[in-house]
Amino acid sequence: MNIQQQIEELKTLKTGLYGHDFLLTWEKTTDELKAILDIAQILKDMRGENISPRLFDSGLAISQFRDNSTRTRFSFASAANLLGLEIQDLDEGKSQIAHGETVRETANMISFLADFIGIRDDMFLGEGNKYMREVGEALDDGFATGVLPHRPGIINLQCDIDHPTQSMADLLHLKNEWGGLENLKGKKMVMSWAYSPSYGKPLSVPQGIIGLMSRFGMDIELAYPEGYELIPEVVELAGKQAKASGGSFKISHSMKEAVKGADIVYPKSWAPFHIMQQRTELLKANNRPGLEALEKTCLAENARFKDWEYNEDMMRRTKNGEALYMHCLPADISGISCKEGEVAGDVFEQYRIKTYLEAGYKPYIIAAMMLSQRFESPAHILGKILEQNRKRVLF
Amino acid sequence: MNIQQQIEELKTLKTGLYGHDFLLTWEKTTDELKAILDIAQILKDMRGENISPRLFDSGLAISQFRDNSTRTRFSFASAANLLGLEIQDLDEGKSQIAHGETVRETANMISFLADFIGIRDDMFLGEGNKYMREVGEALDDGFATGVLPHRPGIINLQCDIDHPTQSMADLLHLKNEWGGLENLKGKKMVMSWAYSPSYGKPLSVPQGIIGLMSRFGMDIELAYPEGYELIPEVVELAGKQAKASGGSFKISHSMKEAVKGADIVYPKSWAPFHIMQQRTELLKANNRPGLEALEKTCLAENARFKDWEYNEDMMRRTKNGEALYMHCLPADISGISCKEGEVAGDVFEQYRIKTYLEAGYKPYIIAAMMLSQRFESPAHILGKILEQNRKRVLF
Amino acid sequence: MNIQQQIEELKTLKTGLYGHDFLLTWEKTTDELKAILDIAQILKDMRGENISPRLFDSGLAISQFRDNSTRTRFSFASAANLLGLEIQDLDEGKSQIAHGETVRETANMISFLADFIGIRDDMFLGEGNKYMREVGEALDDGFATGVLPHRPGIINLQCDIDHPTQSMADLLHLKNEWGGLENLKGKKMVMSWAYSPSYGKPLSVPQGIIGLMSRFGMDIELAYPEGYELIPEVVELAGKQAKASGGSFKISHSMKEAVKGADIVYPKSWAPFHIMQQRTELLKANNRPGLEALEKTCLAENARFKDWEYNEDMMRRTKNGEALYMHCLPADISGISCKEGEVAGDVFEQYRIKTYLEAGYKPYIIAAMMLSQRFESPAHILGKILEQNRKRVLF
Repeated sequence: MNIQQQIEELKTLKTGLYGHDFLLTWEKTTDELKAILDIAQILKDMRGENISPRLFDSGLAISQFRDNSTRTRFSFASAANLLGLEIQDLDEGKSQIAHGETVRETANMISFLADFIGIRDDMFLGEGNKYMREVGEALDDGFATGVLPHRPGIINLQCDIDHPTQSMADLLHLKNEWGGLENLKGKKMVMSWAYSPSYGKPLSVPQGIIGLMSRFGMDIELAYPEGYELIPEVVELAGKQAKASGGSFKISHSMKEAVKGADIVYPKSWAPFHIMQQRTELLKANNRPGLEALEKTCLAENARFKDWEYNEDMMRRTKNGEALYMHCLPADISGISCKEGEVAGDVFEQYRIKTYLEAGYKPYIIAAMMLSQRFESPAHILGKILEQNRKRVLF
Repeated sequence: MNIQQQIEELKTLKTGLYGHDFLLTWEKTTDELKAILDIAQILKDMRGENISPRLFDSGLAISQFRDNSTRTRFSFASAANLLGLEIQDLDEGKSQIAHGETVRETANMISFLADFIGIRDDMFLGEGNKYMREVGEALDDGFATGVLPHRPGIINLQCDIDHPTQSMADLLHLKNEWGGLENLKGKKMVMSWAYSPSYGKPLSVPQGIIGLMSRFGMDIELAYPEGYELIPEVVELAGKQAKASGGSFKISHSMKEAVKGADIVYPKSWAPFHIMQQRTELLKANNRPGLEALEKTCLAENARFKDWEYNEDMMRRTKNGEALYMHCLPADISGISCKEGEVAGDVFEQYRIKTYLEAGYKPYIIAAMMLSQRFESPAHILGKILEQNRKRVLF
Repeated sequence: MNIQQQIEELKTLKTGLYGHDFLLTWEKTTDELKAILDIAQILKDMRGENISPRLFDSGLAISQFRDNSTRTRFSFASAANLLGLEIQDLDEGKSQIAHGETVRETANMISFLADFIGIRDDMFLGEGNKYMREVGEALDDGFATGVLPHRPGIINLQCDIDHPTQSMADLLHLKNEWGGLENLKGKKMVMSWAYSPSYGKPLSVPQGIIGLMSRFGMDIELAYPEGYELIPEVVELAGKQAKASGGSFKISHSMKEAVKGADIVYPKSWAPFHIMQQRTELLKANNRPGLEALEKTCLAENARFKDWEYNEDMMRRTKNGEALYMHCLPADISGISCKEGEVAGDVFEQYRIKTYLEAGYKPYIIAAMMLSQRFESPAHILGKILEQNRKRVLF
């Protein structure tokens, strides 16, 4: 479909994204999610045709990373820049936040001329998403009282519960791989825990995946060694959604069994929920010896499951031995980035470029979240951009 | 007044801001300060009407923060971005400045394509403002010798003597609260020391306040416990200015007495001048044990004045019990950001939104300083911007 | 020559810069180097006439500094901003690169919407240039497989072998000082080691200088105390090039003798090749005591050559006692930035402004490298920019 046709398709979706933060995919309707995918694809195609979708002559997009990031940081920067905004990073180390400034105050102080705030806060279970909502309330308050000229939109760049910019990029990748969301119906997707020599990886990716992918009629299987549970509410939600969408949801405890006949596999390490809870308490108490002891325990526990590596043997068991391998990157690749890890070197290599393509949707997903948060009719705006035909590379 | 009318008013002011750095408010005439306020208000109103006051197609605004900052950092970034400039932060830790590079060299090396340099340097008494002037002389030299294509303007983002972007934002807040600068005549404003559990807060805010507010016919009272003197030259200046403007200036030593009948109160902690002098010597000598000992002494001293908290009891003593509370933020709020601090939680809450509005003028004040430093006739330029009607949000 | 005439001259050069990274000057033809100089000068003159050479409506220029930088950092930022790109710094400390992410992956992850990547990597002998090529191959791969919409260009911001943005800025300075490259023929240029109280300075500047300046018919003399050899391949190359261009190349071991009759002198400290090799091994092994011991040895060795200071006595020996003094800055200036250093305070002061002018070409050299990497016919593009006459300062 050309861009004009895609815009026409977008018009058929009923959405209420305007004025709302993007914090959890399951707070959005299926039409809204489809709209984000459409907008992202249109923006990507526009870039391909050298059309600049600039929406702002000036303005700031603020990023706050409470944990390290490469691809999300660059994706957010790319999205903001694409729309005409300048990135300003809120580096808490260089700010006065340390000396007791309240969240509601900081939120307003940085936002006088800001259009968006992207937040990564995934270290503390029970905290990250809550923090984003606290920022959101402060911005509501600031806008209502005339402190802010408009209400900046918040984008969840990974929290303790969900990682929506990742899962939506993953979904767009699946849509394009299968030629449409409707073709995902009846496909078997396995979100599997995998062994990693590192510790404390957040739960937000597997939770984000089951919380989103369960909405499109797929048969979702969540596999992990006992003890590596996710947040119960998200698991329950995934089950309900799968059923409602005409698919299924199942939990199992063997990667080997789970991958049988799979169309799509997502092998990825995470820390057990109960460990993350302990870790959160220890981090809050700044208990260094406790954290080190917990890390040791956790790594020893992990080491019991080194056979949870996605390798040729596993791959052979999937549908025709050619399930689509997915990963949010960076993967722990056996023999490349670590001795033993989540995925065998040769298997990863076969799908390496596909995982890069998967990651490549993220800047456009973020730009789509921005556009739909800020403009009432994205289709109308995209039509105007197309009509105007402003060039990205000027000559 | 609409924007056009404000521009007309601006035209009536005789100013010589063009080509001069903004380092101390008392180096500017009253008309010049009024012009800055007018320009800031016009830029704020333009933003409200979605007019983009872009002045540059490209260019850099360099920030150098030798101390932490949140709101000034974002205000400077917002101002630069609003006018079309990109922020480039000079992070001394990542530069080669450490190995003996001279100020005059660095000043030129970063400025080949720069339009403005904003500097915060408030840690060392007797140093910050001097440093800014040294940078300024190097830029003069660079421009005169053809090294620089134009002379970048310097904006003082807080030094050891003054904090002009703060005090000017405060003044614009007062102007708007009272419906005009002329209505400030005869009002009583109390700049009072207040208790804080932290140590070493710079003197630049109280000095900036008395150095600026004493010029508009107000009765200024500076209150602090004996021993918490400010730089004598600034105090003397404030006295002279107050008298010349038809107001008065007084020093006293009891918050309780000082706030009686006040229209405006600004309760804010600072370190005693003599402590800051010792601290400067110790910092220069990198004398860690000495600094720790001094901090202990200072905190013990502070603790003698915990009753210097602005609370309901204090507030009741002000004019009709409803003096306007001001603060540069973040305040040490009792029961919120600390156990006992500068202001009681309930009092702060009543004025919280007003302090946010106060802070919200800063980006526009900085943009006004930039515009008036760089263009000979700000009124003419603002008229052109209005006429051109370039949109900030494009669709 | 006015800008139009310069563009006409540029048209006469046959170049193949389009689509190629700028990693080593000796990988480019002489016409290509001339073209870079012409483009840089045109861009500088355009800035002087308030013409904005904006080429991009949006896009990122990524910088990766694996070593400290002031002037190159700001030069790269200035160049990118001039052409309409936003800087995004890849700070490895804030990224996930630490945990085993491969170079080829990171290279792609940051590049989805990037136009250029500038890299400084000069700490490890045998590594920096290799790393840039590894990034380049990853980008080739990413572009070929459809991961990247276009292939971002790489600019060497200093590696272990060459420092082309520096040497090319130096060459443009020489061209302007002598009124044309052809006037450099027969001139004597001395690249001399000089004493510095610091240790481990990279070899890339002297190597870059002899590797570039030997191509224009000059008599190049490389002087250093025995033991301070450069990479043999670069020295050999310089010899061949000098001969081919009608000049000469000579190595000697006394600054005093070398500067006799010199037209141009470039006195600059560097570490001996064999020390850098040991240092690279120790750095890789993270051998702290070994590094400290090596530093001691090296500084002791350096101290034997304190008489390698460029001072009045040295200067008197040059052609008419007025050789052009050059330096990449910051210089170790005796009595100013150190007790005893590379150059005497009074001599440096005579040439201080000239060294600033020399440095001032770097932003334009980088912009020229970008423009010629990205557009097939720079002359055509520059003509369009001139014709369009977009203003840099809008009013």
